[in-house]
Amino acid sequence: MNDKPTAIPEGFDPLVEFGKPDTGVRRRLYTIIFEADTKAGRRFDLALVLLILVSIGVVVADSVPSIRQRHGSTMTMLEWGFTLLFSAEYIARLACVRHPWRYATSFFGIIDLLSVLPTYFALLVPEAAVFLDIRILRLLRIFRILKLTHYVAEYTMLARALRASGRKILVFLSAVLMAVLIFGTVMYVVEGPENGYTSIPMAMYWAIVTMTTVGYGDVVPHTTLGKMIASFMMLLGWGILAVPTGIVTAEMASLRMGRRLPTTRTCPACLSEGHEPEAKYCSDCGTALPRYQVD
Amino acid sequence: MNDKPTAIPEGFDPLVEFGKPDTGVRRRLYTIIFEADTKAGRRFDLALVLLILVSIGVVVADSVPSIRQRHGSTMTMLEWGFTLLFSAEYIARLACVRHPWRYATSFFGIIDLLSVLPTYFALLVPEAAVFLDIRILRLLRIFRILKLTHYVAEYTMLARALRASGRKILVFLSAVLMAVLIFGTVMYVVEGPENGYTSIPMAMYWAIVTMTTVGYGDVVPHTTLGKMIASFMMLLGWGILAVPTGIVTAEMASLRMGRRLPTTRTCPACLSEGHEPEAKYCSDCGTALPRYQVD
Amino acid sequence: MNDKPTAIPEGFDPLVEFGKPDTGVRRRLYTIIFEADTKAGRRFDLALVLLILVSIGVVVADSVPSIRQRHGSTMTMLEWGFTLLFSAEYIARLACVRHPWRYATSFFGIIDLLSVLPTYFALLVPEAAVFLDIRILRLLRIFRILKLTHYVAEYTMLARALRASGRKILVFLSAVLMAVLIFGTVMYVVEGPENGYTSIPMAMYWAIVTMTTVGYGDVVPHTTLGKMIASFMMLLGWGILAVPTGIVTAEMASLRMGRRLPTTRTCPACLSEGHEPEAKYCSDCGTALPRYQVD
Amino acid sequence: MNDKPTAIPEGFDPLVEFGKPDTGVRRRLYTIIFEADTKAGRRFDLALVLLILVSIGVVVADSVPSIRQRHGSTMTMLEWGFTLLFSAEYIARLACVRHPWRYATSFFGIIDLLSVLPTYFALLVPEAAVFLDIRILRLLRIFRILKLTHYVAEYTMLARALRASGRKILVFLSAVLMAVLIFGTVMYVVEGPENGYTSIPMAMYWAIVTMTTVGYGDVVPHTTLGKMIASFMMLLGWGILAVPTGIVTAEMASLRMGRRLPTTRTCPACLSEGHEPEAKYCSDCGTALPRYQVD
Repeated sequence: MNDKPTAIPEGFDPLVEFGKPDTGVRRRLYTIIFEADTKAGRRFDLALVLLILVSIGVVVADSVPSIRQRHGSTMTMLEWGFTLLFSAEYIARLACVRHPWRYATSFFGIIDLLSVLPTYFALLVPEAAVFLDIRILRLLRIFRILKLTHYVAEYTMLARALRASGRKILVFLSAVLMAVLIFGTVMYVVEGPENGYTSIPMAMYWAIVTMTTVGYGDVVPHTTLGKMIASFMMLLGWGILAVPTGIVTAEMASLRMGRRLPTTRTCPACLSEGHEPEAKYCSDCGTALPRYQVD
Repeated sequence: MNDKPTAIPEGFDPLVEFGKPDTGVRRRLYTIIFEADTKAGRRFDLALVLLILVSIGVVVADSVPSIRQRHGSTMTMLEWGFTLLFSAEYIARLACVRHPWRYATSFFGIIDLLSVLPTYFALLVPEAAVFLDIRILRLLRIFRILKLTHYVAEYTMLARALRASGRKILVFLSAVLMAVLIFGTVMYVVEGPENGYTSIPMAMYWAIVTMTTVGYGDVVPHTTLGKMIASFMMLLGWGILAVPTGIVTAEMASLRMGRRLPTTRTCPACLSEGHEPEAKYCSDCGTALPRYQVD
Repeated sequence: MNDKPTAIPEGFDPLVEFGKPDTGVRRRLYTIIFEADTKAGRRFDLALVLLILVSIGVVVADSVPSIRQRHGSTMTMLEWGFTLLFSAEYIARLACVRHPWRYATSFFGIIDLLSVLPTYFALLVPEAAVFLDIRILRLLRIFRILKLTHYVAEYTMLARALRASGRKILVFLSAVLMAVLIFGTVMYVVEGPENGYTSIPMAMYWAIVTMTTVGYGDVVPHTTLGKMIASFMMLLGWGILAVPTGIVTAEMASLRMGRRLPTTRTCPACLSEGHEPEAKYCSDCGTALPRYQVD
Repeated sequence: MNDKPTAIPEGFDPLVEFGKPDTGVRRRLYTIIFEADTKAGRRFDLALVLLILVSIGVVVADSVPSIRQRHGSTMTMLEWGFTLLFSAEYIARLACVRHPWRYATSFFGIIDLLSVLPTYFALLVPEAAVFLDIRILRLLRIFRILKLTHYVAEYTMLARALRASGRKILVFLSAVLMAVLIFGTVMYVVEGPENGYTSIPMAMYWAIVTMTTVGYGDVVPHTTLGKMIASFMMLLGWGILAVPTGIVTAEMASLRMGRRLPTTRTCPACLSEGHEPEAKYCSDCGTALPRYQVD
């Protein structure tokens, strides 16, 4: 009768996805690595997140010349330590699920692999080391540990607002790109290569820098006509700035209102929720509703 | 009885506007070129959009010095190829409608002509070639092929919000322009030509660059008083930024709410209106409602 | 009984304010200069607005060195012509109202005087000529000619939203100024005069340029700590940007809803307007209302 | 019966917090220093705020080299005068409350101490003097004197909107920081040290400067690929700008609506709620309503 427990989970459930072994060491390992509800699982996840944060710090610090000169070898050693630890974790993850291939091809599976590959790859091509930063994506796990149900609710609402506005924003972006191409071409003609507008792509780069109000100042109009066109474009861009803001805001305000309704009235006959404050009969079963009371 | 087909189309209908020939090759051509519902028509439109995108890419690439030096002659050849193709298409469009003049003077008719003229014109004045970028406007056709009813709905709503806010934004822009003139004049007096404010128009350019928060940095105040006035202007501009954003947002939020209410349902028993799309019984009298139909 | 006609007018009424002479030339002059409803009055106002626009154009053009060198004497002559015309108009305005002093001390009276003074004053101090730009404020008259009732309605609503949000924006601005002082002081200590932060006022100027996202780039942090503090400040300023926008938007949305209500239902007994869609009885006289019909 | 006085105060009440002496000089002192309702208290607070403003002005002015050279010794003397006055005030505050330790560890107690320490500390380390600016935080007292109930209401609402949106903004900021790290790393690899991206922290600084649309221009992309990535990032940042704005706006709009409904009126006859403040009769049963009282 009560079909609430069978509701499809919105988030990601490793249990359903990858399968949990029935017995033995693999089951124990699974409980530690994949489950966040048990004490051991929570400790493991916390240690993992701290390790990831420290390893990202090492990658970032290693890119600073003065630090690399003094602590270069320590950094390299630490980096190899992290890589081996994460590699071991990756193998353990693969080993303790029923469907390793499903894990390897899942979002986090790919991220986990990509977060160790650069170190090995850097043995061949040294520049690859900086891509160890991809580890930051692993931090998305953090939301799982902290059991931030509230945060997740906000996240879900943000995502819904963005998805609901997605189409409008796409239409809007396509209009912006057209404006960028047209203004870029016009400025390329008006200002010309001698003022820094060396090609249409360069002029489009300038148009984006200007319309987004970033305004580096590395390319600026020098002719009077160019300055007039640029001024017009800035005012246009400024007005346009209002559009995507308005889109998302209206969407979020509408979601908030939509979200508030379900918490109001419940039908005593069929237990359906979300009736309007002024409704007199249940819109699901037609039973007369008790008077609405503001609490 | 059913007056839905007679509903006035919001968009643009070539059938009504330009007239469809009754029989023969011209009718066949019309079906391919102007209609987007048939298989041939869809293929034609898709090929056209791809061609437009490639031809724009050629114009943009041709403006990059390093590419032009190496592939200059190929580019010119390609450009002539596109121009001849688009010219043929333009003539075919003129040929297969009943009222060629109406097409030639319509929005797309003018765009279609302008998108081939620069190449011919460039035989006389080489600089005109860059205006081939005007072809991008032809891409507005894309909305017709993809049958993006949803996108078009979003577009219509955006356009309505902008039109509804148009007057307010105009009033607002006139106030901004007054502020730009006044602040520009004051800064021209305070900073003077020796600090880059060589004339009032130049100072107004600076004021626009500053109030829109673009801030190139090619002209900046150097005197203490100038910096104080500029600081005040930035804070003012920042506060003002809220106004157009608020205008559009309030308009869109209001459209969203307005849009939801009028489209809803009427109870056949008590004639009460505004029932939620998912309601099964009238919330005013409890009568069962007929199924909700999205129109 | 009906006290609607006695409602205090929101706008400005010269008739009530300055007094209209009863007969003679002064009355005729008053009709032309101050009234915008008669044919002669409308023509006069239109001519005046065009004259103001042209005279502003002359002042702006005169500041461009290349134009001044070539057409300097023409400009000066034109300027004197406009000044004499506006002086004559100012004297005529003073002459044809009953209470000249009230006009002279009114908003437009002061603007009208200020818009001719700089030319005379420039005989003594040549730099004063640029302040002729103050004439632009006279253009506020334009709203009277065009009888833009809609524009004025939008203006009134904008002004109401700003006034309603005024206090919140003031509280917010005081918080921003505190942040500017604190961040400015910290950056003055961290970066010091050798990096361009020559004094606390200079560092506060930098803080305003950064928090408003203008970002000229004439003063930028050079030390690592300074860059970290600046980064934090930018993110803070970005988040803060949302606040005034939110304030005005919420205020406007709320005004819109308030404004929409009055257009809905009218009581058949007392003719009062603005009843809620779900009201059953008139909230002003208690008479039963006819059913609400969405139109 | 009347439980209004027992309502828990939202703000801060020194009476409850620190305790008021029963009799004697300490009670008199307490009335002057801590209470803002009495005449003496109001004068004291006003004098204090003026003193704080002047002393901040002295610190700021003292940092300008030209002023320090001419009036250096006067500034130092003034500074010592302010410090001794504020020290005396701090000791008086400690002396006249029942629980001095509670005051010393309260928010204003710490600020009061910090606002005099730098001068004494500057005897040892001269650079510490600039931190006297911390005195500005003492100005938060201003809200107490001016009895700006309205301002405080706005403040409370702003704070509630920010607190209500706090989680969403945090989630959003964490996403922004991830984007900054990823884009920073990519640009460090693409542009490299030779174009100013000397390390990943430096590239992250650039990413923040760009995403917040500040755009100093001290570090800009020079390679074609770098410019493309930067352009994409700017458009992304522009779209993202809409999110925090939307969050706060939706929250404030919702607070406004929430605030209006609960405060409205109930019909004594049919107990229906939500009548407009200006309604004279119940819109549900037509009964005359008692006069509306703003509380």
